[in-house]
Amino acid sequence: MLLADAEIDRLAFREAMSHFTAAVSLVTTDGEAGRRGVTVTAVCSVSDDPATLLVCLNRSSEANIRFEQNGVFAVNVLADRNEGVARAFAGEGGLDLEGRFATAQWSRLQTGAPILEDAIISFDCRILESREVATHRVMMGRVVALSVPKAGHSLLYRARRYHALPYQDER
Amino acid sequence: MLLADAEIDRLAFREAMSHFTAAVSLVTTDGEAGRRGVTVTAVCSVSDDPATLLVCLNRSSEANIRFEQNGVFAVNVLADRNEGVARAFAGEGGLDLEGRFATAQWSRLQTGAPILEDAIISFDCRILESREVATHRVMMGRVVALSVPKAGHSLLYRARRYHALPYQDER
Repeated sequence: MLLADAEIDRLAFREAMSHFTAAVSLVTTDGEAGRRGVTVTAVCSVSDDPATLLVCLNRSSEANIRFEQNGVFAVNVLADRNEGVARAFAGEGGLDLEGRFATAQWSRLQTGAPILEDAIISFDCRILESREVATHRVMMGRVVALSVPKAGHSLLYRARRYHALPYQDER
Repeated sequence: MLLADAEIDRLAFREAMSHFTAAVSLVTTDGEAGRRGVTVTAVCSVSDDPATLLVCLNRSSEANIRFEQNGVFAVNVLADRNEGVARAFAGEGGLDLEGRFATAQWSRLQTGAPILEDAIISFDCRILESREVATHRVMMGRVVALSVPKAGHSLLYRARRYHALPYQDER
């Protein structure tokens, strides 16, 4: 399938990306602009020194600008036990913001961004840089605190469905 | 574990990131600066309109600058059948560049970057922007061609080991 530039349309790219398996994370923020949360798959590690990661958020989401305004975010890496929370924050069930947060237990670390109590691990970040790239905003965050890691099967997304990667820590 | 900025050291962050499950991809380039390939987990979708994705490469790698010089890269999304290729390009076995490429079959799409024949899917990209962020370089690529998707269990990495996500396409 050799396609010229103009032919990689939105649907073809989305179909192609559906073959890519990604971990599901819940990205949250809190502060003067208010508390928000978004279920995402576009998270990756950028650098370990200093500890930096990035998240891509769709600019069409109302929540998006709140992250930048608060200047902080947390990446909560989800286990299969968190699938209900992932679905709630992806908009399934039609819950409002308070209803979505009511589906789980939260704490805080350093920035005040909501930390999901039973996530596999959470990265608490201050936004270093936030920039628009086409339809999305790429936020780079400096990791300023970490939760205690918890065992769990990873919640993954491929082919528009949730999956679990069975996992036994043998270290 | 509430840690102040200075306490999130390299090892603590690497340990924390080891709990994050990521798909394994082989990122390749070719052109005037030469052919190279690197096994990575830091790939994510940025935008579907226009189709854009990003890859983070460690700047300490000699291969890194070749990507920028060639101005193109391909992201080959790996199946569990590609674990040997992933290990070869991660430096296991001590193969030289030619030896690594000799472990698999390749083709090309539009940019000339090597396309792994039996990957799940490949994204052929022109570099839109490449920038340094701490230890790494973040390359944003516009997707200009796609391979035909192939069935396969996703090759994943968690806790410093390879895993496979069994997958049956039911669409």
